[in-house]
Amino acid sequence: MEHKIRTDLALEVRESFPEDDVEIKGVILTEEIDEKNNIRITTVEIKDDKGAKAMQKPIGTYITIEAPELNNASDDYHKPVSELIAKYLRKLTGDLSHDEVLVVGLGNREVTPDALGPQVVDNLFVTRHLIREYGDEFKVRNNLGSVSAISPGVMAQTGMETMEIIKGIIKETKPRLIIVIDALASRSIHRLNTTVQISDTGISPGSGVGNNRKALNEESLGVKVIAIGVPTVVDAATIVADTLTKYMESTGFGEEDIFQFISEVNGSQMYNMFVTPKNIDEAVKEISYTLSEALNSCFSQPIIT
Amino acid sequence: MEHKIRTDLALEVRESFPEDDVEIKGVILTEEIDEKNNIRITTVEIKDDKGAKAMQKPIGTYITIEAPELNNASDDYHKPVSELIAKYLRKLTGDLSHDEVLVVGLGNREVTPDALGPQVVDNLFVTRHLIREYGDEFKVRNNLGSVSAISPGVMAQTGMETMEIIKGIIKETKPRLIIVIDALASRSIHRLNTTVQISDTGISPGSGVGNNRKALNEESLGVKVIAIGVPTVVDAATIVADTLTKYMESTGFGEEDIFQFISEVNGSQMYNMFVTPKNIDEAVKEISYTLSEALNSCFSQPIIT
Amino acid sequence: MEHKIRTDLALEVRESFPEDDVEIKGVILTEEIDEKNNIRITTVEIKDDKGAKAMQKPIGTYITIEAPELNNASDDYHKPVSELIAKYLRKLTGDLSHDEVLVVGLGNREVTPDALGPQVVDNLFVTRHLIREYGDEFKVRNNLGSVSAISPGVMAQTGMETMEIIKGIIKETKPRLIIVIDALASRSIHRLNTTVQISDTGISPGSGVGNNRKALNEESLGVKVIAIGVPTVVDAATIVADTLTKYMESTGFGEEDIFQFISEVNGSQMYNMFVTPKNIDEAVKEISYTLSEALNSCFSQPIIT
Amino acid sequence: MEHKIRTDLALEVRESFPEDDVEIKGVILTEEIDEKNNIRITTVEIKDDKGAKAMQKPIGTYITIEAPELNNASDDYHKPVSELIAKYLRKLTGDLSHDEVLVVGLGNREVTPDALGPQVVDNLFVTRHLIREYGDEFKVRNNLGSVSAISPGVMAQTGMETMEIIKGIIKETKPRLIIVIDALASRSIHRLNTTVQISDTGISPGSGVGNNRKALNEESLGVKVIAIGVPTVVDAATIVADTLTKYMESTGFGEEDIFQFISEVNGSQMYNMFVTPKNIDEAVKEISYTLSEALNSCFSQPIIT
Repeated sequence: MEHKIRTDLALEVRESFPEDDVEIKGVILTEEIDEKNNIRITTVEIKDDKGAKAMQKPIGTYITIEAPELNNASDDYHKPVSELIAKYLRKLTGDLSHDEVLVVGLGNREVTPDALGPQVVDNLFVTRHLIREYGDEFKVRNNLGSVSAISPGVMAQTGMETMEIIKGIIKETKPRLIIVIDALASRSIHRLNTTVQISDTGISPGSGVGNNRKALNEESLGVKVIAIGVPTVVDAATIVADTLTKYMESTGFGEEDIFQFISEVNGSQMYNMFVTPKNIDEAVKEISYTLSEALNSCFSQPIIT
Repeated sequence: MEHKIRTDLALEVRESFPEDDVEIKGVILTEEIDEKNNIRITTVEIKDDKGAKAMQKPIGTYITIEAPELNNASDDYHKPVSELIAKYLRKLTGDLSHDEVLVVGLGNREVTPDALGPQVVDNLFVTRHLIREYGDEFKVRNNLGSVSAISPGVMAQTGMETMEIIKGIIKETKPRLIIVIDALASRSIHRLNTTVQISDTGISPGSGVGNNRKALNEESLGVKVIAIGVPTVVDAATIVADTLTKYMESTGFGEEDIFQFISEVNGSQMYNMFVTPKNIDEAVKEISYTLSEALNSCFSQPIIT
Repeated sequence: MEHKIRTDLALEVRESFPEDDVEIKGVILTEEIDEKNNIRITTVEIKDDKGAKAMQKPIGTYITIEAPELNNASDDYHKPVSELIAKYLRKLTGDLSHDEVLVVGLGNREVTPDALGPQVVDNLFVTRHLIREYGDEFKVRNNLGSVSAISPGVMAQTGMETMEIIKGIIKETKPRLIIVIDALASRSIHRLNTTVQISDTGISPGSGVGNNRKALNEESLGVKVIAIGVPTVVDAATIVADTLTKYMESTGFGEEDIFQFISEVNGSQMYNMFVTPKNIDEAVKEISYTLSEALNSCFSQPIIT
Repeated sequence: MEHKIRTDLALEVRESFPEDDVEIKGVILTEEIDEKNNIRITTVEIKDDKGAKAMQKPIGTYITIEAPELNNASDDYHKPVSELIAKYLRKLTGDLSHDEVLVVGLGNREVTPDALGPQVVDNLFVTRHLIREYGDEFKVRNNLGSVSAISPGVMAQTGMETMEIIKGIIKETKPRLIIVIDALASRSIHRLNTTVQISDTGISPGSGVGNNRKALNEESLGVKVIAIGVPTVVDAATIVADTLTKYMESTGFGEEDIFQFISEVNGSQMYNMFVTPKNIDEAVKEISYTLSEALNSCFSQPIIT
């Protein structure tokens, strides 16, 4: 069956294994808690092909920051979350304040839950053109990384693979690191707009809100690619299937062809539907701001350890 | 149990009765088909208190226009749909081209599926101020109805009941008919952005996307109120419950406390979630335009029969 | 001559008198400087009919806060400006944290320099509905004023006088103070988006960006009206006329029918044009936020003196 | 003097020569009138270096379509204007319905008068990805050109020269023609949002609303570049200078250091100001639609002669 439970979060894939406490070969799971801010940081490391196959995700590190209060947060709460994102981002990238980075905001800015990437880019402090105009001395004096950014739009808007656009821009502008921002699908409504996943594996094909596009990763682009994602939707079929599965468990039934059944009941249109909170416009605006603040602080300040 | 299947469409309430072909006392159902454009028009008339109780909707007429192709429609398709809406609207209102109408666009313009009302108002050709400036002769010569319009915003934005705002405006500007435009919740994803409900009963309390507000109807406002609604969301709990119910029927189980179960699985956050198509931004923009064209044509042209 | 130098700032009217240092009968001018933040606060008090006639503005107090650095301000600069606005607003209103206030955002949200009012309202923390739901005890415990708000749109959008809409809402909701927010026209490009005028006279007819509307003031509405305005445009004809006048002075020519001449050269279309800075979208967004912060702080905090 | 009269329209440069009827060497001017629709089409051909020097524009053809009624146009008026634009565009490009075209929407979508390019791109029917998925047979059957499109944003948003971005994309996607859409500055307020300039010379450095960017033309990109522009602003200093100049002529004074004078009076901020009509948001939306319709018709229909 083609359709299956949809999640872009490595953490949720890991959680989906029944043997929750058992070790999966080639996958290391570690957890930290920031009690003061009620934030959980989980790191999933996929170490080898065995782990990659089990997880159906590329080898690499996936850091998930869960801040459940982000949804109803006061303005003051965004600052510690933003600082935490910056801290864990630097774990994967090293010091960014001297680097040359291209930030790519994926997604369609006209579709609210998909507008996360473009909205983060809108709030970035880009500097590459300033450094080129005022020279390296300007860069050093201000302790600035060279930052460029683009929101290329989605294939239905451009007629081009995002990969083609970014590859071309890389050839001309030669950044040394790509940071890709994208809206994700999660399996749980509790994670919507409260969770950030940072990985060093790029964006795999078939991810995102069901769009087809070729992978953006070091192999395809020739430059290291860090991906930052926030789940903003749950696939409608997934939420129904998840509930059904749990219902069947509770009634003692075995798993069956659930998605088949959902299709019969709801038709194929179900697969063009997503579940999203009623305050999605506000939520995306706020978490975009938190992410761009995290990035801006990485690009313009030295690491103080 | 507090939560239950959510629909704002009288047609769907009618469909929910198991005895689908049997007559319900006090409710008359008639159906017309526009074969050329593949449009079905269903009229539900609730004639008395018995019918109102069975349907849990006020006494009155509910016309539902289903145009399933609206979703992927070419520009040319919108014109016949718009004309059909105008035709059935006039069935409830009579000739509008000499009347004094206040159009109210309900909903929150910042939340895409709720922005239908404000977007319709944005495209209206308002004339009241012109007629007041240039006189009745201007009105007659151009065969214009007097049209005023407002998008008051929702209570979380204004701190006021919509009813209070509209009541106040009516006192000052004395329109003779109110047309209220609102986004609705339906039970079926197939009806999203393809269905228009026109009724002469106003908007009942507890309708809409789960917001509490007092009724806008002839009783509360002292003026006849026509409501035009388009379903743009399905309640997330409803879609899960509907699928579950059908699953249980197919496995021979009786109906149980399904929503209770959904709550246990998904938590209370489920009730702040809705299901919406991925192209919701585009879809709301297009059907808003279709509605405003229908209204504009009613206000400025004589009925030719 | 019908057209003349356009300004909504009492301060600029005062400055336009040739006898700049001389006293004008019935008009008192006082000035304070906040040196630390480079802000000048000027208070123009029109005390009697003589002053009103000379100034062509109603009797009352006009406080102008000029913060020239607002235009290129860091985020940190907005806070002291916002506190200053709150302080001078309270000079005209008294303590607002126990009052019942209706905030009206005038202007057309689709036209960027006219969107100031609606954008301020978008950021307000409205409380009236909460207090009505949770009771006065809630209000006292949180030290909250009752705040409602509306952005009615302009007459070309609604077909109604703003005055009619507001009057109706006042009848239904009975606020004890109205605060009106509007974008203004100034005479000098230096004041655009850097100046705030607070007055206790309401909004006079013919103000704003050339729109006709009836006055919103205590006389027409029966409630005290405070107006807060920010110049976001200069009338195009005014900027040309101002430059021409100065040119003629420098060449020794006397004043002539300048506007007549401008009309001959540029045609009547000139009067539908305004001058605005290239960054107007960003500038309006920022100063709207500063104003809404000032208002929010007045509504929910006690005055500490 | 650095600053001078600003116009991006070849037609206005041509008009600025005092010897209006005299021939300028190397420049050919022809004019056609569409009387029915009250549209004037002027073609300025710069034939050689002499003409280029006199006109301070590159050698090539500049077609200007002036449709003064576009500003208050009914919906019906946009269709003939759109067809006319398509017709003259094809004069410069040949049949586009079999070509591979990349459309570039220049400008900042957050600044209304600069959002023309992005808004045109938003309404394009892009096809390149469909042709790549369904094959050439699909293309031939539907008589489609291959269309891709991008709105790269401006340098202050991306940190990159537009030229770098486009050059990179061309390398990867290999279009055979580039069509660049941009908002222009004109000298006359009468031409705002009513005039379209089509040229085969690309976009020259220093054009646009005063931004610095490198040329997008055949020389820099290796592909033919057609530029389509619509004036949406008049430089504020230009409108003042133009009026002053005419004033001095009428008083018998000779030309002097006018811009110097304007600077003294208004300060350097004048050069960050533009003049724009009050209905700019609506005007840009409408003419964008007219342009995208013209392009869509070129891409998907054969020329019928």
